[in-house]
This record gives sequence, structure tokens and C-alpha cells, in this order.
Amino acid sequence: MDVFDLKEIIENIRFFISARDEANLKNMLLSTHPADIVDIIVNLDEEESEYIFSLLPSELASEVISDLDDYNREQILEDMEDVRLTEIVDEMDSDDATDLVSELPKDKAIKVLEGIDIEDSEAVQRLLRHEEDTAGGIMALEFVAVNQNTTVDEAIQVLRAKADEVEDVYNVYVVDDRQKLIGILPIKHLILKTGSTRISDIMERDVISVREDMDQEVVARLVKKYDLVSIPVVDPEGRLVGRITVDDVMDVVEEEASEDIHRLAGISDDVEIYETSPFKISKVRLPWLLFSFFGEIGSAMVLSRFQASLEKIIIAAFFIPIIMAMGGNAGIQSSTIMVRGLALGEVGLLHARKQLLKEFRVSLINGFVCGILLFGVISLWGHYIAFSHFWEFGALIGISMFLIIINATLVGAFIPLFLKKLDVDPAIATGPFITTSNDIFGLLIYLGLATVFLMHHSL
Amino acid sequence: MDVFDLKEIIENIRFFISARDEANLKNMLLSTHPADIVDIIVNLDEEESEYIFSLLPSELASEVISDLDDYNREQILEDMEDVRLTEIVDEMDSDDATDLVSELPKDKAIKVLEGIDIEDSEAVQRLLRHEEDTAGGIMALEFVAVNQNTTVDEAIQVLRAKADEVEDVYNVYVVDDRQKLIGILPIKHLILKTGSTRISDIMERDVISVREDMDQEVVARLVKKYDLVSIPVVDPEGRLVGRITVDDVMDVVEEEASEDIHRLAGISDDVEIYETSPFKISKVRLPWLLFSFFGEIGSAMVLSRFQASLEKIIIAAFFIPIIMAMGGNAGIQSSTIMVRGLALGEVGLLHARKQLLKEFRVSLINGFVCGILLFGVISLWGHYIAFSHFWEFGALIGISMFLIIINATLVGAFIPLFLKKLDVDPAIATGPFITTSNDIFGLLIYLGLATVFLMHHSL
Repeated sequence: MDVFDLKEIIENIRFFISARDEANLKNMLLSTHPADIVDIIVNLDEEESEYIFSLLPSELASEVISDLDDYNREQILEDMEDVRLTEIVDEMDSDDATDLVSELPKDKAIKVLEGIDIEDSEAVQRLLRHEEDTAGGIMALEFVAVNQNTTVDEAIQVLRAKADEVEDVYNVYVVDDRQKLIGILPIKHLILKTGSTRISDIMERDVISVREDMDQEVVARLVKKYDLVSIPVVDPEGRLVGRITVDDVMDVVEEEASEDIHRLAGISDDVEIYETSPFKISKVRLPWLLFSFFGEIGSAMVLSRFQASLEKIIIAAFFIPIIMAMGGNAGIQSSTIMVRGLALGEVGLLHARKQLLKEFRVSLINGFVCGILLFGVISLWGHYIAFSHFWEFGALIGISMFLIIINATLVGAFIPLFLKKLDVDPAIATGPFITTSNDIFGLLIYLGLATVFLMHHSL
Repeated sequence: MDVFDLKEIIENIRFFISARDEANLKNMLLSTHPADIVDIIVNLDEEESEYIFSLLPSELASEVISDLDDYNREQILEDMEDVRLTEIVDEMDSDDATDLVSELPKDKAIKVLEGIDIEDSEAVQRLLRHEEDTAGGIMALEFVAVNQNTTVDEAIQVLRAKADEVEDVYNVYVVDDRQKLIGILPIKHLILKTGSTRISDIMERDVISVREDMDQEVVARLVKKYDLVSIPVVDPEGRLVGRITVDDVMDVVEEEASEDIHRLAGISDDVEIYETSPFKISKVRLPWLLFSFFGEIGSAMVLSRFQASLEKIIIAAFFIPIIMAMGGNAGIQSSTIMVRGLALGEVGLLHARKQLLKEFRVSLINGFVCGILLFGVISLWGHYIAFSHFWEFGALIGISMFLIIINATLVGAFIPLFLKKLDVDPAIATGPFITTSNDIFGLLIYLGLATVFLMHHSL
């Protein structure tokens, strides 16, 4: 495949648009992969992308709109007529149709549900009952299932009947007479085994499935752990109700990773990349800024308590930034390792004590290196500005740095483990939270030591 | 499937180990999924896990060791005898065998390569030539390919012959007489079409493939974009040379996300979750700590230049932490959105100016809110401590906060875009780098304004 050159294609599209060459545009779009059309639409202006979308036949349109991000999708849906919308939804798989219908205003959603195939409409309504971030919320109702008593030949008939409806078939699910999932059969066996073989004789009985109310993150972890391409979904009675394919799981993995990354940066919600309203973006960023704001007002109060010390030894104020920054960084490092490790299941609570001990050892090394360096820098500096007690003062700040790095590292490592133990998402303990609390601790340690120092040295 | 209860299983295993009940242990392991055995081994002590591993028959052992993390794998490989190791490698798929052999000491690797099947040995040696993080580095040589002139019946014969060797077959690749990849056929068509149909008549011609030297991140993005379960790999002449399956791509996605997360936290390398040597862990964390260290020495120098101002108005020192923290946080928020958006391809350089404008608008809102708040807090505080110029001083700090948040947000957004433009990985612009540079900028703005203020108010 040639690399898809977005920039060149966009230029061509724009040229055809300005030349009003609809025939050529249509031809071009029909030979383009839906995923590429998504890329094109995202990179066009609003008006252009609505026009391009209007040229797509409904089947292609249904694939494109399922793949579009929320923001662009909303833009395109806004002005769409109900008839066209109904046509498009009618072409979709149940999971994509459900996603789309759930985003529509209520009256529009009802019109669409009345307009599409009655069977599809029922399917969507059933799926709408599930929470968005559960197995039921991401599953599709399209799958191939056979009774355990069927033969290979009969299973092939079932597959043939379903082939158009179910796009990617990798496995046939096997159920008993009460629809309970009892086995799985990779479809290559339908090719390799003779036609009269009973399915129950060749199926795999250890089938990994998920319950419809299971969190999507757990689903993703199972698919990843067992290297699956799809996973069947069952109801509380064990009856087969749906299927989740690996492409949807991949989306979950990226979504969850983005969520972790954004939390670490103090962004409280995930839906902002495509958001254009600065007020909406501010709404997901301002909470952590304000948290940090009030935390640092606490820092200011700590500093004000030490006003007398600061006035006597103004040079101590110069090192407030380094004390804060190093504590913050050391804390973020250890908390991130814990949060990510817990999220991926690589760090377990079974090993919590061992992990903390490890962090303590690391903090000894890092604290020692930074402490010694700071001592060196201050000794030199004090010498240079002819500050009389630079040697003692350097030792004081060096020791502060050493203690602050140890403290920050341990706080950063401990809080996520503690939250996990309480069954609270450890990710809230990242970024601004750790940094702010370590700022306050750090200043207390530093200025406390400085005050002790002043009691013994009148400057 | 019942949820796999790790804690209980570990307890059982430990009980059997202490009772030296090898028969029961073996039984238990044989009925356990390899991925679950991995979880067990990771949670046992070193001695226990080596013992458990030694009980596994070589095929099961090969699956377990392929899934193990680097640290535990190394532990187990260390003491393993060459004969056993060779047996295990002989059972592996070419990609897993290559991964393992590449980690062995040279003499051991040679012994293993001499011991295994000559064909497998050649395959591994061929794969070893590729860079680890390219398509060639993660592909396997096991796949099913047929000539375009074969019929469905003949293709089924090929599939039958390969069925044992190639574990998960979803597609048959179609090549011409010179082995060039020209099409792809989902295997369900082998079931649905009549036996005499020519493959070239039913294959899909638009086949998405990757070149062997393509970066694994690009591979992952293609698999994700086009919702694939596997992707064929071709050499520079377009000849089919391998296949990458979605489970390996999923690993890449998580690996890259972890890398981004760790970079954001100032951890320079990715392999540390399982690392136990504190020196090695320190080695990946200390560089960013030191970067920040010297940056903040710069902050100290900035502060020392303003010593006269600070001495006159010591209350200004109290707000150094909040100025630094808010600038740091605002910068991390915008840089993270850019870095993650660029990594996922959601933010493109085509829209760079639009993105910066958006960030500017957001920073106006956030800067305004925080600036006003700080003005309010200081006015109240100044009133409380009977500081004479609290109103003017509050306005000064409020304006500083406003400017600093705008500056930090724009710096945070601009640097990743700029690095991307230069073709440098934008992820290096995250975390400590942005924070440290914004600390220095922030202090300059703040103390600069404070000095101007002092020129007009003799305190």
C-alpha cells in the first residue's frame, strides 16, 4: 500500500470543491477507505466536510460517521435531515447504531428508531440499557452462534446465512439448548474438519467470556492478557448476548491510557482534544488549577510563618524553587510508576511493601546525589558572594534536599497504593495533587531546618 | 468463565509446594491458561517460580516464557540448562523465539540456534537482522499465503498443511508468481465460495500492508485506523515476508502509552516496573531530576538578582510557590494535550495555528480566574496583617498570575508543535522540561513586575 498522503489529498479535494466537480469528488471518495475519509473530514473546514459527507452513499456514510470523533460527528449530525439519518443508521452494526442514537436529541432519536428496521430498532433499544463503559455498552449483537448438537455442515449453513450481517467472523460460539455459552470454535476448523463432525466434539470448552455489566477496562485487560481477537459477552445466567471485537478493545486501551495521561497533567476529563469552546476546555482544566491554587496559598501561609527566618537570611528564599521542584518531580516519578503499574496490573497490592521498600532505596540514592550537589553549588556560591556561613548553610540545604526527596518519593508511592486499597481510582493521586502536597511538606522541612540553623547562628 | 482468583491460587500453589505435592501441582498447572501461569509466576518468590516453571512441559513453558516480563524471564533463563532451553525455543513461533534468543548471552544463543530445527534457526537468524522496534522486529514468519491462480479447494489444502504451524489464521494472503503481495482473503470465503473458484476472482485487492523497516508505532496506528486483526509485512520489493497479529500491536500501543506517561513524569526510559536494582531505577529517573536541578539553580540566580526587591517586600517571597506551581500546571496541561494529540494523530500540524489560538483563549479564561482569585486572597490577607499597600500589591500579583498562566500555556502548547515540525519526538517536551522553563519565566515576570512596583511605592 502506498502511504496515504493526507496533505496532497486534501489539496485535491479542495481543488475539486472549488471547481464544483462533483463527479470527480464522488469517484475519489468511493475509492477511498472509510478510515481515510475520516482523516479527510477532520482536516477540512466545517462547510467543506459537511459537503463531502453529503456526497457519500449511506453505507459508506455509516462507516465514516461511526469512526468520526464526537466533535465532528456532532457537527455533521446537527444539520442532517431525518430521512438521511435514518438511512445511515439502518446500515450500521448494532453497537455503532447505539452509540450514535445515544448522542441524538430525544425527539430525533425516537424518529430514527421508528424509521429503521424493527429488528435493528429493538436491538439498539436493548443495547441502550447498558452503561456506556461496560461490556454491554461496547458489545455488538452481531455474532455467529450454533447449538452444540449441530454438525460442521450445519454450522457452515449458519455461517452462510449470517455472513453478510456479521462482518468479521473469527470464531463460532457454541451454546446449549438454553442459549448458555459452553464453547468456542475458531472457524478454520469448519474448513479442516469433515462435514459430519459434531461441533461439541471439536469445540474448545475453556471459553473466556465477560459478563455484560463488567467494566470495559477489565474487558480490555482480559482480551490483552489472553491475546483474543474477540470476546463473547454473557448475561448473569450465562446466556450468550453479544460480542466485543478487538478493534473496540484497542479503542478502550487508548482511551484509558489517554485518561491516565490527562489526569497526570491535571486535566479532569478526557473529551477535549476536539473541543473548541474555550469555556468547556477551561472547565476540565480549571479544577486542578484551583486545587493547586489553594494548596499553594497553604505554601504561602507556611512561608509567612517563617517570615522572621526569611528576613534574617534572605538567601534562603532563593532556594525555595529548587526545593519545591525537586520534591514535586521525585513525587511524580514514584506516583506515576505506581499508578501506571496498578492500571496495567503490573504492580499488585500483594507486593506493596516490597514496592515501597524499593522506592525508599531509590530515594536514598537520588536524594543523596541531589543533596551533595546542592551542598556543592551553595558552598561555591556562598564563597563567591562572600556569605559568611555558606558552609553550614550549604549543609543545611543539602540535608533538606536529601530529606525532601525521600519524603516526596515515599508519599508519591504510598498514596496510589493506599487509594487502591480503599478501592478508589489511584489516578486521582497523580500530578497536581502529589506536587502540591509535596510542596507544602517540602517547605516545612526546609524552613524548619533553616529556623533551627538560625537559632544556632546569629547572622 | 469464573474470574481468575489470583490470591487464592497463589495460596494453593504455596500449600502444594510446601507439601512437596508435585503431582497435584503439575495437574493444576496443566489445566491453567499460560497467561494465568504468568500471573502466578510473577507473584511468587524467585525460588518458587523457578520451581513451578521447571514443572511445565516444554510447549506450555514456551508460551509462558514468551509472555513473561523481561525481569522474571531473565531470572528463569539464568539457571536454565541448554538442553531444556533449546527444547523450549523449538516450540516457539518465530517472533517469540527471536525475542528470546536476542536476550541471551552470545554463547548461549549460538548453542540454542544450533540445537533447534534448522529451518527455525534460519528463520530466527533472519528476524534478528531487523531493528527491534520496526515491523520486521515484531513480525512472525508464520502465515498462510497462496498464489493468485490457485482455486479455493487448493487454498484449503494449503491451509490444512499450515494449520498446525500457524496458530491464528484470519486471512489468507495472495501473492503473484514473484511472491509479491497482491491481495487478501478472509478465510470465511474459503467456506462460503465453491471449491473451483479462483482466488484472484474473490480476493480483496486493496490490501493494507507495512514495509519491514516501518516503525512499530506507525504499524500500530495503521492496525488501529483500519480495524485490522493482522497486517502483512512486505520487503522493499513488495514481496510478502511476514505477518503481525493484533495482540502484538496491542502490546505496542500499551508500550508507547507507558512511554509517554513515563516521559511526562520525567522518567527517561521505560523498563523499570519490574526492575529491582535501585541503581538501575535511579539511572532512569536521575537525569530529569538533574535537569530540573540545574534549571532551578537558574531560578535561584533569578531570585538573587532581585534580592533588593525581596528584602524590601518580604511578603513577595511568600507567593513564589504559587506563581511557580500555577505556571507549571498550566504548561503541563497544554503540553500534554499537544503531545498526546500528536502521538495519536489527533492533532495535526495542518491545524497548528488553530490549536495555539484555542490554547490562548483557554489561558485567558484560566489566567483571569486565577488572577482575580489571587488578588482577592492577597487583599484580604494584606488587610489582616495590616500591610499598607495590599491593594496595589494584590493587583500586582494578580496581574503576574494572569500573565504567567498565559505565557506558560502558550509555551507548553508551542514547544511540542515546534519539535514535531523539526521531526523531534515531542514527548521530550513534557513534564520537567516545561515545568522548569516555566518556573524561570514565571519568576522573571513576577519579580520584574514587583521591582517596577517598588520603584513607584517606597515601603
